[in-house]
Amino acid sequence: MIETMPNWLKKRSELSPHREALIHEDHTYTFLDVFEEAKAYTGKLGILGLQKGSTAAVLFSNQADSVFILYALQMAGIKAVILNNRLTSEELSWQLEDCEAEVLVYESGFDEKVAGISSGVKFVSTAKLKQLKDSDPLILDEYDLNVVTTIMYTSGTTGNPKGVMQTYGNHWWSANASALNLGLHEQDKWLCTVPIFHISGYSILMRSQIYGMPIVLHSSFDEKKVIEDIQRYDITIMSVVSTMLRRILDELGAERLPPALRCMLLGGGPAPLPLLESCIEKEIPVFQTYGMTETSSQFATLSPEYSIERLGSAGKALFPNQIRIVDGDGQDVPSGAEGEIVVKGPNVTIGYLNRPDETADKIRERWLHTGDIGYIDGDGFLFVLDRRSDLIISGGENIYPAEIEGILLSHPGVADAGVIGAPDEQWGQVPVAFIVKSETGVSDEDLLALCERKLAKYKLPKEIHFVESLPRNAAKKLLRRKLREWLEAKDDGVGH
Amino acid sequence: MIETMPNWLKKRSELSPHREALIHEDHTYTFLDVFEEAKAYTGKLGILGLQKGSTAAVLFSNQADSVFILYALQMAGIKAVILNNRLTSEELSWQLEDCEAEVLVYESGFDEKVAGISSGVKFVSTAKLKQLKDSDPLILDEYDLNVVTTIMYTSGTTGNPKGVMQTYGNHWWSANASALNLGLHEQDKWLCTVPIFHISGYSILMRSQIYGMPIVLHSSFDEKKVIEDIQRYDITIMSVVSTMLRRILDELGAERLPPALRCMLLGGGPAPLPLLESCIEKEIPVFQTYGMTETSSQFATLSPEYSIERLGSAGKALFPNQIRIVDGDGQDVPSGAEGEIVVKGPNVTIGYLNRPDETADKIRERWLHTGDIGYIDGDGFLFVLDRRSDLIISGGENIYPAEIEGILLSHPGVADAGVIGAPDEQWGQVPVAFIVKSETGVSDEDLLALCERKLAKYKLPKEIHFVESLPRNAAKKLLRRKLREWLEAKDDGVGH
Repeated sequence: MIETMPNWLKKRSELSPHREALIHEDHTYTFLDVFEEAKAYTGKLGILGLQKGSTAAVLFSNQADSVFILYALQMAGIKAVILNNRLTSEELSWQLEDCEAEVLVYESGFDEKVAGISSGVKFVSTAKLKQLKDSDPLILDEYDLNVVTTIMYTSGTTGNPKGVMQTYGNHWWSANASALNLGLHEQDKWLCTVPIFHISGYSILMRSQIYGMPIVLHSSFDEKKVIEDIQRYDITIMSVVSTMLRRILDELGAERLPPALRCMLLGGGPAPLPLLESCIEKEIPVFQTYGMTETSSQFATLSPEYSIERLGSAGKALFPNQIRIVDGDGQDVPSGAEGEIVVKGPNVTIGYLNRPDETADKIRERWLHTGDIGYIDGDGFLFVLDRRSDLIISGGENIYPAEIEGILLSHPGVADAGVIGAPDEQWGQVPVAFIVKSETGVSDEDLLALCERKLAKYKLPKEIHFVESLPRNAAKKLLRRKLREWLEAKDDGVGH
Repeated sequence: MIETMPNWLKKRSELSPHREALIHEDHTYTFLDVFEEAKAYTGKLGILGLQKGSTAAVLFSNQADSVFILYALQMAGIKAVILNNRLTSEELSWQLEDCEAEVLVYESGFDEKVAGISSGVKFVSTAKLKQLKDSDPLILDEYDLNVVTTIMYTSGTTGNPKGVMQTYGNHWWSANASALNLGLHEQDKWLCTVPIFHISGYSILMRSQIYGMPIVLHSSFDEKKVIEDIQRYDITIMSVVSTMLRRILDELGAERLPPALRCMLLGGGPAPLPLLESCIEKEIPVFQTYGMTETSSQFATLSPEYSIERLGSAGKALFPNQIRIVDGDGQDVPSGAEGEIVVKGPNVTIGYLNRPDETADKIRERWLHTGDIGYIDGDGFLFVLDRRSDLIISGGENIYPAEIEGILLSHPGVADAGVIGAPDEQWGQVPVAFIVKSETGVSDEDLLALCERKLAKYKLPKEIHFVESLPRNAAKKLLRRKLREWLEAKDDGVGH
């Protein structure tokens, strides 16, 4: 029944115009500044022919103008397809075709990548967009919570990336659920070093405007700068993935982070126990979370009072959210038993762009079937065992083996291909490929060259092993567990 | 699209079972305790024949069991008509008939009042309810945000009390909007001395379960006990009306309240400037608010950063809310100009029980026409000048002149009657009546006796003036402004 609320950034600029909103490379912008900057961009987007209901793609890094443009798109009611800037031209082309964006706004640093894009989309650089003359701003007075505002691509087990649609309401509920869990202090300041093209970074922008909270935005992750800025700006909350946290700890050495830092929000897959233990030693308040693009960020978080007692748990579903663990038939399993994690809540996506079948398959009676494996203990705490069975998480980025396998199989010299994640000290996991050659034959250099053309760098296999055949079951399904055993055997042979 | 979320109290008891939830007369109940107590009551309510969708009325004071029963009704999906315990048997009878409640649950202290009720409703005392045997609990797994959970009666300008319907969603949004404005600290503890049968008190219960925040509940307002308990329990937030705040200040004398008290939430009508100035002197952080039963509590609040600069303002509409000032034709007036306050937001009632015409008249395209008069200054701050033109607010209770006039006119000795609010040092305002006798004639003692039978004590006219005729315009509309002038002239004659 209640579907609308006031335009968030406009409302925020009216409620607390002079509060700090964004700090980026020594510039500080108030909420009024950010609103004015974004408002100016809405007029320029209009000149490009975009309007309420249009779809525009964006390709940029963590810059102040990226933030303004994201806000502009949201305020104008233009759906933003937020592209991962680490993808190759080929990957980007596919997503641009799939989402049917009318315009691609890109940061000048990505010129070369954009030049390689084969898509009918209209391009405009942020520099050029900025130079367009001012025009009547396109500003919604109200947001309809049921309307889609962002689309973020995630790959799936089938190998095809899918556009996850997130509504205004998804982001609103996510921000509120997080506040109810973490609390909301007047002095809160969130350090964002995660990409704003990911839900982890984008959700920080949403919280900023909804809470009226400043964010300190880093263009990229640099542990030295992180430690400096936590001190310098009295940062209270920071979002990290394991790799980042590890690097912060290493950089800290014998030092400690200031006690004002009240929350280190750790997402992006299960965290290694030794890392969590190091944090406890250093009194870094780690809140382990579970979430994904489909849940518009955090879905479950370990409450502060349990952070030590239930080390390694992702906690409980946030206040508006529900989690069940089900077996293959969709039946609830007893507490303590493993099964698929299924989730329900107002921050869960309404579905995948232009994919009604996959949406219907994944979301049944509003329950999203995540494909992740876990269990809930006797006291209701969630433990995530494995992300989407075959998902590889490398430095916080999701990598789907099927996508890499598809590329490898496209080479005439490859008869069969299997990819798994191998443990890696720095990145958590890295992809490793197993190849069965065809009669034509192929070298690992050839395959790597092919992958480099087709895949983002973080997806490149770090090892390629040639084998006689791949382990497949009667239904020809690849047995990745067997591959992992092979890898372990190989590593043992080589020795660490 | 998103209409459901988990049962709040159940969810809260799972998320933070061992946190303090309710402190009342030296007893402390955790969220698990409160859930278990309320759950037991749901089974007992079932024995009375109540079930999801039923309507039950409650008549009680601020007791722990009152809280448990209110939660039980909410968890069972039984609509709760929360009656004002200061009303007379006759007033209560009217509301019970109007709302068609199946059962009235009442506190034993109100035996006599209940004995006087002439309504076919089934009665059961809380004591008796408690003694019923345990039965299968009636607990909703999820709340549908569009469903009505509470009904609170307010009188209107027409004299007939109307049941304001509040949905789960209204309360949810109200609690969230308040948190976004006031922040949410782990150590927050709310002192509730306002009646839980009013939205001011009931909304504190909603915040308690949604935030996971303890409340200290007083059975009634006692300034000595307030000052003691603020110290004793490290209270951080308290809801007050002007009369209460005045009494706290008087009791404090040269003392001060502890600095942990971070918010004195002041509602119930415009506050006198000298009172606000005294609070600034004593560093009591007053947040002046504007809200009503129809907005499920606070709608606008003055942000902390402006509390001194805009003294006397009720601030700006909370994040999800909007306010406009309109003229008689419903057109927006320029900033600074007076007009009717109209409000829109997800915490605004869906309407009046069984009164589609009045609902349609008051709520147009989701904008509630409050009847209150005010203006918005050039910077967007709301100033409330007059509540509903003729509304009298006495010690935080709303009194509608038309209701008293209706009673007076029912006496054969009265030809015409007009009631207005007169300024009063202790209560803010008190009702004063002007009477034109009929040929039969009547004494003021007779009229007072009649009022005492029919009206709650706080509604009794404090003065009755007999006059030749009442000032009415051509359309026979009573000119209350003229009556106020008459009163001032009289007072000046008598001298203060």
